[in-house]
Amino acid sequence: MAPFLTDWRGRFTGRALAVLRPADPDQVAQLVQACAAHRVPLVPQGGKTGLVLGSVPDASGSAVVLSLARLNRVRALDPVNRTITVDAGCILQTIQEAAAAVGCLFPLSLAAEGNCSIGGNLSTNAGGTAVLRYGNTRELCLGLEVVTAQGELWNGLRALRKDNTGYDLRDLFIGAEGTLGVITGAVLRLFPQPKASITALVAIAAPRQALDLLTLAQDRCGASLTGFELMSDFCLRLVGTHFPSLTQPFVTRHAQYVLLELSSSESEEHAVGLLEETIADAIAQDIADDAVVATSVAQSLALWQLREHIPLAQAAAGKNIKHDIALPVSCIADFIASTDARVLAAYPGCQLVCFGHVGDGNLHYNVAPPPGTAHEDFLAHQDAINRIVHDSVASYAGSISAEHGIGALKRDELKRYKTDVELNMMRAIKAALDPLGIMNPGKIL
Amino acid sequence: MAPFLTDWRGRFTGRALAVLRPADPDQVAQLVQACAAHRVPLVPQGGKTGLVLGSVPDASGSAVVLSLARLNRVRALDPVNRTITVDAGCILQTIQEAAAAVGCLFPLSLAAEGNCSIGGNLSTNAGGTAVLRYGNTRELCLGLEVVTAQGELWNGLRALRKDNTGYDLRDLFIGAEGTLGVITGAVLRLFPQPKASITALVAIAAPRQALDLLTLAQDRCGASLTGFELMSDFCLRLVGTHFPSLTQPFVTRHAQYVLLELSSSESEEHAVGLLEETIADAIAQDIADDAVVATSVAQSLALWQLREHIPLAQAAAGKNIKHDIALPVSCIADFIASTDARVLAAYPGCQLVCFGHVGDGNLHYNVAPPPGTAHEDFLAHQDAINRIVHDSVASYAGSISAEHGIGALKRDELKRYKTDVELNMMRAIKAALDPLGIMNPGKIL
Ligand SMILES: Cc1cc2nc3c(=O)[nH]c(=O)nc-3n(C[C@H](O)[C@H](O)[C@H](O)COP(=O)(O)OP(=O)(O)OC[C@H]3O[C@@H](n4cnc5c(N)ncnc54)[C@H](O)[C@@H]3O)c2cc1C
Ligand SMILES: Cc1cc2nc3c(=O)[nH]c(=O)nc-3n(C[C@H](O)[C@H](O)[C@H](O)COP(=O)(O)OP(=O)(O)OC[C@H]3O[C@@H](n4cnc5c(N)ncnc54)[C@H](O)[C@@H]3O)c2cc1C
Repeated sequence: MAPFLTDWRGRFTGRALAVLRPADPDQVAQLVQACAAHRVPLVPQGGKTGLVLGSVPDASGSAVVLSLARLNRVRALDPVNRTITVDAGCILQTIQEAAAAVGCLFPLSLAAEGNCSIGGNLSTNAGGTAVLRYGNTRELCLGLEVVTAQGELWNGLRALRKDNTGYDLRDLFIGAEGTLGVITGAVLRLFPQPKASITALVAIAAPRQALDLLTLAQDRCGASLTGFELMSDFCLRLVGTHFPSLTQPFVTRHAQYVLLELSSSESEEHAVGLLEETIADAIAQDIADDAVVATSVAQSLALWQLREHIPLAQAAAGKNIKHDIALPVSCIADFIASTDARVLAAYPGCQLVCFGHVGDGNLHYNVAPPPGTAHEDFLAHQDAINRIVHDSVASYAGSISAEHGIGALKRDELKRYKTDVELNMMRAIKAALDPLGIMNPGKIL
Repeated sequence: MAPFLTDWRGRFTGRALAVLRPADPDQVAQLVQACAAHRVPLVPQGGKTGLVLGSVPDASGSAVVLSLARLNRVRALDPVNRTITVDAGCILQTIQEAAAAVGCLFPLSLAAEGNCSIGGNLSTNAGGTAVLRYGNTRELCLGLEVVTAQGELWNGLRALRKDNTGYDLRDLFIGAEGTLGVITGAVLRLFPQPKASITALVAIAAPRQALDLLTLAQDRCGASLTGFELMSDFCLRLVGTHFPSLTQPFVTRHAQYVLLELSSSESEEHAVGLLEETIADAIAQDIADDAVVATSVAQSLALWQLREHIPLAQAAAGKNIKHDIALPVSCIADFIASTDARVLAAYPGCQLVCFGHVGDGNLHYNVAPPPGTAHEDFLAHQDAINRIVHDSVASYAGSISAEHGIGALKRDELKRYKTDVELNMMRAIKAALDPLGIMNPGKIL
């Protein structure tokens, strides 16, 4: 059972009575019925890439793990309706490839796509790199098939863009992290494949200019703007230190950079032309200081590589204290300035590694020790630093979990930052749909 | 109290103990507390334009009407975050205008926009003409403020694109038609205003070609495709009969027409060019037989006028039996063919008036009597015709209420077409959030 009990990062190993590996939705239903009859808690598990200890059992050993990995069929693909119907255990990359094979795009994309399952993506409402244009996993799902906590199979596999027939049960199961039922299948939205995507790296003076650039780019490019990532010079230097072979595009350094991606349903020339005009306008308006526009797909990829190597460079530098947060986009600059000041006042000299999907208001706000301090020792300050950062997030009406969910890891934080009114509604819903409390107990609530 | 008791179409007048007109969310909370203490049912009411008897009380006279009309402030507008925060009683058009004043678009648009409230739009998850590009009201809402059935004020007014902190209560209240709580405020998404929208009317041989044209137009135009409406020649002839002053663009008649709208964030020339290329391609591929492209905003409006006069022409012709249905887009042609055959077999000579938002799979499938039969007499067949049409919808896994909800009018239909598993989950949620059953009883469930 070992591989099913330890979380992705290897931080925690739980215990389980057994690992159940059903082959189809009916077997899932029968297993849940058996668990309900014997009051045995269940931990649904997909690709196990979740980062909040949601898909591993606790240390008590009283639960069973229910792996969806064998439910891995693409059930149907309808290019005219632009939908794909899949088993919950399908690996995200398999779904992307099935869509691409008929000239369609399934836009959900994240670094774990070769391992995570769509059932896990749905249960955590995963985000990723395409949210600015296509939304979170929630917005990509039209219908669900779910085994309820009573072991009944609910066929909610609707492939409809409009349906107002009663309560939105679909969106209740999405993001519920397996605490309300087991997702066994889903109908997902597909999109036309863009003809070209082109990227630029834009140098700016401060995070505030990123907001001006975002407004300008959205006004000029509308839905063609498909990526908008902010990163500080410190982030790029960190990449330079640990991955010296990656080309750094600017000779002189600037304070901040925005990675801007445009996609066109028409042609590469259309994308390049629009991108160049937009950047020229931003420079003319003194929003941008300098820019490098990729003139080929290879160059675009090289710019994305810089962005994607930031977490890898951080990992190479040593452990650090991470925050997966979201804010109203308009507060980003103020948030960074005031939170930096608070953290630095409490921990002088510590290193702030801040980057993220600014177009969605989503920041990776990570704190590393002052140069010379051992990374492991610095982790002792994790709770205190979480408190500073999350209190700051709360003061801007932000979210302490933008992408990853609550799981077991952030349960206490949830209690601290949510009102009783909201927590009580959640508890009432949990009790209504899972009265025996057998679905992934100890997660979220 | 009279104006608060009769529904929009004047079909039904209920009775009430009183009409309550609170001025702010705290007063709403106090009134709900008082109703809960005395077990008095409440009927939330917005603009009262709903078409399923959701916002009027029943005939018993035991309920109070809770009008949100005095909660009509735009609370905040954030053009950088592209959000607007409004009271639930705000009229939709007021919100559209406030957004336009800062160069933004609030895309929700429907014929009732001068009268309906955003609280009603949210509670019915209204659709309208911009769903193809921007989604239903659900997709346009980031956060809600709600008075629960216990009279507590829940501040869920988040202005975030990403937030994975617990169950999705927002989407549970959206579309709940006032049966779970009272929406008092909302944070809505805004979009950049497109620079130009251009329209064409395309003549095609049959509904199947509309699906080919949709695929082609989406592949070529992506998110620039903002409208895709199907109408039969019978619909246009009906408009011609009742509104002879409207120009009919084609000299020779064709079986079906698609109204296609493109919007560009760049320029009018860009939109016109893309539209012309797309149509040329459709004609070259034998998908389209002929087309008229509007070369000005005035001409575009004239084409939309034809579409918008179909319901008015129908009304002028006399009462008919309407269906607000949705289907997987790929089933539309088969659905129309087989349903037409079934209805005509049962009612030879009756007139089928079929048009709608085909890009969303949403049809208005209306049945009028054979020429010569009195419209009023024909309404006697309403239940039997609903049965044929809704059974056909169910056989294609469609929805019997695409846009308007269930209210009191379609409650029995809901019971017929939903599974017990689904109905029982809805009942459990209703009992969990409104244990006294005081929120709009007799609606949906
Ligand atoms: C390298 C890496 C990069 C990542 N990048 C991102 C990112 O960019 N954006 C992002 O949002 N996340 C990211 N993640 C987090 C993670 O990949 C996602 O949350 C993913 O959606 C989890 O899918 P999974 O199948 O691995 O789920 P698991 O880890 O197996 O499960 C996650 C949760 O969902 C529940 N669950 C799983 N399957 C089901 C089911 N069928 N029915 C009911 N409940 C179920 C589990 O009980 C658990 O609570 C990343 C993770 C890694 C390791
Ligand atoms: C001419 C015309 C055209 C229309 N076109 C469309 C269309 O294209 N697309 C479409 O989807 N609909 C359409 N409709 C239907 C209707 O306009 C929409 O459903 C609209 O959203 C209702 O808003 P309202 O404020 O009038 O709601 P009401 O009729 O007042 O209420 C509707 C429901 O919501 C509940 N409710 C209202 N406010 C609240 C609140 N604050 N909190 C909780 N519950 C509340 C009520 O109890 C009721 O159940 C049309 C109607 C008309 C008359």
